[in-house]
Amino acid sequence: MRLDFWYEFASTYSYPAAIRIEDVAREAGVQVTWRPFLLGPILKGQGWDDSPFNLLPAKGAYMWRDVSRICAAQGLGFRRPDPFPQSGLLAARVALTLTVSPARAEFSRGVYLAEFAEGRPIAEETTIVEILSSLRLDAAAALAEARSPPVKDRLRAETAEAMRLGLFGAPSFVTRSGELFWGNDRLDAALAWAVQEKQPFRASHADSTS
Amino acid sequence: MRLDFWYEFASTYSYPAAIRIEDVAREAGVQVTWRPFLLGPILKGQGWDDSPFNLLPAKGAYMWRDVSRICAAQGLGFRRPDPFPQSGLLAARVALTLTVSPARAEFSRGVYLAEFAEGRPIAEETTIVEILSSLRLDAAAALAEARSPPVKDRLRAETAEAMRLGLFGAPSFVTRSGELFWGNDRLDAALAWAVQEKQPFRASHADSTS
Repeated sequence: MRLDFWYEFASTYSYPAAIRIEDVAREAGVQVTWRPFLLGPILKGQGWDDSPFNLLPAKGAYMWRDVSRICAAQGLGFRRPDPFPQSGLLAARVALTLTVSPARAEFSRGVYLAEFAEGRPIAEETTIVEILSSLRLDAAAALAEARSPPVKDRLRAETAEAMRLGLFGAPSFVTRSGELFWGNDRLDAALAWAVQEKQPFRASHADSTS
Repeated sequence: MRLDFWYEFASTYSYPAAIRIEDVAREAGVQVTWRPFLLGPILKGQGWDDSPFNLLPAKGAYMWRDVSRICAAQGLGFRRPDPFPQSGLLAARVALTLTVSPARAEFSRGVYLAEFAEGRPIAEETTIVEILSSLRLDAAAALAEARSPPVKDRLRAETAEAMRLGLFGAPSFVTRSGELFWGNDRLDAALAWAVQEKQPFRASHADSTS
């Protein structure tokens, strides 16, 4: 059983989801595929050239309060990044270069903690280098690869795939059959769905061998 | 302990919330105040003259799937109203005339079931009359009062109060201290918060009398 975890590094609600997803997925027996993408181009397609949380003040004020409540309940530090949103472009490209598990998950959690617990600028190369180095990953190699055309193309392709799947926000979760769940608060429902999807296959497999 | 339940009759996510809120609130020991309001004027203030679910196709497609999953899990029927959104103006005015508990809650649940389980047009007087009559409420009196200037003014005042409280969507839940929770999926968190708020008062009351 597996679940695709689609996340954007600028996204506040992706932060608590990224921190807890491996723990809750393990409990459910589900394997997580970490899929960073860019939400900006999708929002631009809806006519928005800034975060809806900046464009809609009441929604923004609520989000800051809501995310701080969620982080407090999860025992996570939370600071409002300045400016918001941070560009997640470099971090997303670097994440795509990390293909050996669990490097991508570890790096991604490191980026979210730097951004939202420590208030560090994740668009800056020095922040990304520090996160990679603290994980004993080869920062120079990752950065060089992150800036290569194949990785840039791959991030564009992932973002196009996100749009094709119907994503319009982050975090989102997609099961093997394409069932979409949006929001940190839907992670448990997404895992339950992923587990349920597996069951018919098991049942029919049991039938065919009995 | 009490919780204000702000709902809009056109709102899809308000439907499962309205059906289950009294049961979960009773379990939590929280009393619910039913506060219908109009979301349209608030969305208009954000520059939107239609439901965001119509204006943003990906978000809309997701919402229909998500609400149908939620209703299925809750054992509720669900039909997509046509047209969507339905005008909840008449229903909201009628709800405000029902001041003796539990008439407003019963009527409101009846409207949601008519709209989303049965696909009936809630903007039409005949639907509202049938719902009132089925609850043995005086339909003629309620409709006459619903169209009186004081009730129209009261709905305008409630909608203004919703905006003052920072509401931007429905359903929303507001605790006694003004803590805001948005969305059917935040009902349990809102109840937990309402229960927690009561505790310091109890403790200090115990202190002052000991």
